[in-house]
Amino acid sequence: MKAANGIRRIGITSKSNSRDAVRTARELADWLRRRELEVEADESITRVGGGHETVTFSPDREYDLVIVLGGDGTLLSVARELQGDTPVLGVNLGNLGFLSEIGRDELYPSLVEILAGRYQLERRALFRVELARAGGSTNLYSVLNDVVIAKSALSRIIELTIRVDGQLVSTYRSDGLIISTPTGSTAYNLSAGGPIVSPSLPVALLTPICPHTFSLRPLVVPDGSLIEVTLETQREEVFLTLDGQEGTTLGFHDTVRVTRHERSVPLVRTSRRTFFDGLRSKLRWGS
Amino acid sequence: MKAANGIRRIGITSKSNSRDAVRTARELADWLRRRELEVEADESITRVGGGHETVTFSPDREYDLVIVLGGDGTLLSVARELQGDTPVLGVNLGNLGFLSEIGRDELYPSLVEILAGRYQLERRALFRVELARAGGSTNLYSVLNDVVIAKSALSRIIELTIRVDGQLVSTYRSDGLIISTPTGSTAYNLSAGGPIVSPSLPVALLTPICPHTFSLRPLVVPDGSLIEVTLETQREEVFLTLDGQEGTTLGFHDTVRVTRHERSVPLVRTSRRTFFDGLRSKLRWGS
Amino acid sequence: MKAANGIRRIGITSKSNSRDAVRTARELADWLRRRELEVEADESITRVGGGHETVTFSPDREYDLVIVLGGDGTLLSVARELQGDTPVLGVNLGNLGFLSEIGRDELYPSLVEILAGRYQLERRALFRVELARAGGSTNLYSVLNDVVIAKSALSRIIELTIRVDGQLVSTYRSDGLIISTPTGSTAYNLSAGGPIVSPSLPVALLTPICPHTFSLRPLVVPDGSLIEVTLETQREEVFLTLDGQEGTTLGFHDTVRVTRHERSVPLVRTSRRTFFDGLRSKLRWGS
Amino acid sequence: MKAANGIRRIGITSKSNSRDAVRTARELADWLRRRELEVEADESITRVGGGHETVTFSPDREYDLVIVLGGDGTLLSVARELQGDTPVLGVNLGNLGFLSEIGRDELYPSLVEILAGRYQLERRALFRVELARAGGSTNLYSVLNDVVIAKSALSRIIELTIRVDGQLVSTYRSDGLIISTPTGSTAYNLSAGGPIVSPSLPVALLTPICPHTFSLRPLVVPDGSLIEVTLETQREEVFLTLDGQEGTTLGFHDTVRVTRHERSVPLVRTSRRTFFDGLRSKLRWGS
Repeated sequence: MKAANGIRRIGITSKSNSRDAVRTARELADWLRRRELEVEADESITRVGGGHETVTFSPDREYDLVIVLGGDGTLLSVARELQGDTPVLGVNLGNLGFLSEIGRDELYPSLVEILAGRYQLERRALFRVELARAGGSTNLYSVLNDVVIAKSALSRIIELTIRVDGQLVSTYRSDGLIISTPTGSTAYNLSAGGPIVSPSLPVALLTPICPHTFSLRPLVVPDGSLIEVTLETQREEVFLTLDGQEGTTLGFHDTVRVTRHERSVPLVRTSRRTFFDGLRSKLRWGS
Repeated sequence: MKAANGIRRIGITSKSNSRDAVRTARELADWLRRRELEVEADESITRVGGGHETVTFSPDREYDLVIVLGGDGTLLSVARELQGDTPVLGVNLGNLGFLSEIGRDELYPSLVEILAGRYQLERRALFRVELARAGGSTNLYSVLNDVVIAKSALSRIIELTIRVDGQLVSTYRSDGLIISTPTGSTAYNLSAGGPIVSPSLPVALLTPICPHTFSLRPLVVPDGSLIEVTLETQREEVFLTLDGQEGTTLGFHDTVRVTRHERSVPLVRTSRRTFFDGLRSKLRWGS
Repeated sequence: MKAANGIRRIGITSKSNSRDAVRTARELADWLRRRELEVEADESITRVGGGHETVTFSPDREYDLVIVLGGDGTLLSVARELQGDTPVLGVNLGNLGFLSEIGRDELYPSLVEILAGRYQLERRALFRVELARAGGSTNLYSVLNDVVIAKSALSRIIELTIRVDGQLVSTYRSDGLIISTPTGSTAYNLSAGGPIVSPSLPVALLTPICPHTFSLRPLVVPDGSLIEVTLETQREEVFLTLDGQEGTTLGFHDTVRVTRHERSVPLVRTSRRTFFDGLRSKLRWGS
Repeated sequence: MKAANGIRRIGITSKSNSRDAVRTARELADWLRRRELEVEADESITRVGGGHETVTFSPDREYDLVIVLGGDGTLLSVARELQGDTPVLGVNLGNLGFLSEIGRDELYPSLVEILAGRYQLERRALFRVELARAGGSTNLYSVLNDVVIAKSALSRIIELTIRVDGQLVSTYRSDGLIISTPTGSTAYNLSAGGPIVSPSLPVALLTPICPHTFSLRPLVVPDGSLIEVTLETQREEVFLTLDGQEGTTLGFHDTVRVTRHERSVPLVRTSRRTFFDGLRSKLRWGS
């Protein structure tokens, strides 16, 4: 059977094997199957259960909805792996996050709304990251929050050259650089002094980490720009980190190219909580 | 006669009566008339000359090009007053600015380029500002840089409520708030800790001045948003300032509404200097 | 009679005529007189009462203890006016402050401790401020929090020259400058980006307000230094403000000289709350 | 022979084996010996020369003056190793630094002044650092600039507890913490947003690196305080770095204790350049 809104096949995933996450996932799978929806869940969830879950969740397959149980970190990780235009619902099992703003107690009321077609999709831009090694090889990644180029704790200051659409921005010395999506503006970018950006804006943020040049301030550019960052420093240990989760070392004259990804992540929203409501409660504004 | 590129009637203006500005303007007017172009200049310039300048420059009239002699401040002032879609060329008589990036020595070479049709128009967004008094009356303004709501030096901290498209952002206490266009991002916004924004982006910046709530950070929102700021404080002296040039006092429960203006300012560009080149030299990046 | 700890004559003052303040003050006066202490209170308090208060509180007279009912603002105002080495107890009738950290419900338990001699005196440095007019006249002030030199909201940027012990620090452009005591470090200084300073340190803070030179950062110097700030700007409206409460206009080439005052303010402390406890609760650290 | 001012035995050291450093050192040694002073130099310098340098420079031995050829980094490294109260003269072979403010061309004129007794000693505080492992072992270090506790680039945010004299300051999440001497205030501390501190002040700076709690601001405390920082995070890679030069990993519940060292470093000063002159030229203040 297909729900009124076209949702028929649902994926359930959680990066955690915690008893809490597994129990929540199993209850959720049962609840959805009772409504005659097709459910595919993580193997860890499937394994524990006795039942009929013959198909395991895989980010490579197509779903009408993927429900992510966990925090913002889990959602970031799943969102990067998904294909196509799959709607994602983040359910927070701990503290409310910026992405997973539905708490466990809101899970079933929200699903009732969603299955009745009463929800919005809020598209969040992904960035496409190409690491071009000085030696010629390349790697591709995608991020929903940010790309960070930073020195290791034991290294000295590093020098980076930034170009936007082929135009030189600056060669400067610092601890590193954050290239953030609007979604990532409330993450590492904010700790490093960058601005908060409405999630829908077509922009990229370039925020230096502890720069030696004090006038080198956070920079907002079109997300369609080609942002190129080249490491000018030899011998220091420097890392490229993706969404704060994956990473690799960077070498002398390696270049990182960042631009808007063709794919975006449609977040499912049912609440009337605005972006600013989230900021006020998470950042303790006002009161 | 009409130049190849359709430029026929040119306005020349300068807010200054300095001997320097007047002499430059007169020479410029002569140079243009020798090329059989129609020239209208400020009365101060006309008066000094002996000649045939029968028509005085007025921002209300239509021109194919307006040449502004002075600094960024003069250009801001003229740009706000112009009507329609008049291209503006800023010529800096002092230090290079962000808007008036042609120096005096580049004036005639640049004009040769422009009259030959070799230039670009870079459209800069204006913001429309409506001051709605608690008593019911309203005033309209436009700005190219910024709208500032700030307490006077002898006042205590003030409280403002910010709404974006009717959604509450925050009620917070501070010295004030800067609402800046991308063009204004390198002006007062930068001193108050706001980010630098590419001039073409469709965004508005909301940057608090010395906020008491430390998590209240610069905010980037779509410039099509309706930004509403209401003064919640009684008895303190508070001012609304437009482009740092015009101003008025604000009273209890007065509301300032800011959104994108339908009009933008087409800046004439002939140089190959990029936005980032300007940042590097003005902010002394790199070296 | 004299209390064990030598406290015999107590002043009670409140800048407020609110019913709440007056009632609290009268109850307090009665409570102290029942313990055979000599009490002098504000006229507003005396007037309302029917009784034997024949002598009115005056900051010029000597007391063994002055109890200030109100917030930090009231305490600042009283502390500047007191003579000699009078111990001050701040009682907060509203939200807890940095200076008035005893709430109303702690008033009598604290007084029992104080009259039994169980308290500490925490000496807070005052700064001595001399305003030397370009024309030759001088005025003297003292501050417990800060001296602020700032442009008015409608003025443009101002230029100041700072000297410390006759050595040029910088001539720079900004909205102004805060010269803060350690006590004032948690006040305006903090909003403008200055550091928090342990109250006992022999230092002065120089914190620029929205400087145009981004490398011009908060500066910590010995409080025995002679700090001299000269206004280099003509025609703009600039103010000198003392503890955010008193002020006057500054003219071209007027100089403000700040140094440690010979007098300090002994704050009476009974609680075990540390300076850091106060920071955590007021600034919402940790959690 | 002994110079008028009691300088008899001089050490010459440079961390570099560059041809430039070695040649400068040899010329300097010759110049000093011609004035009948006893000279001990690095082995690298001695080895190259043909001559009578039978004794090699060692930081463990006593000198009346140690001349350091190199930049601020070299001086930091030598200053930490010296014993007792040995005066140090920093000679910068590259760009002028904050510590090595004599350029090569000023070397001999300065030495003439020094040998004639015309110089000042500016004592810079060292901090004593004790690393107390959760397992019970301890290590001791000393620093002239700063102690940094920071996460590695691939780690997530870390949690630290700070105590000052046994009083809890905060448990907070960030990229790390800088504990800086006044001398170090113009180094990493400045990039992370900390204030500039007069070198003579008896203070320590605690500056968080990219804190998640935005109200957690740089903190200035007495340098006689016992500052204790405990790592509360498991599994993330965290480093302790000393003067940006030496380092070790930190484990769960390891504690770093920092306080004023009994030893200070007497810098030899001959120039009339003030601390503020240095700031203006290095940080490009003024205009």
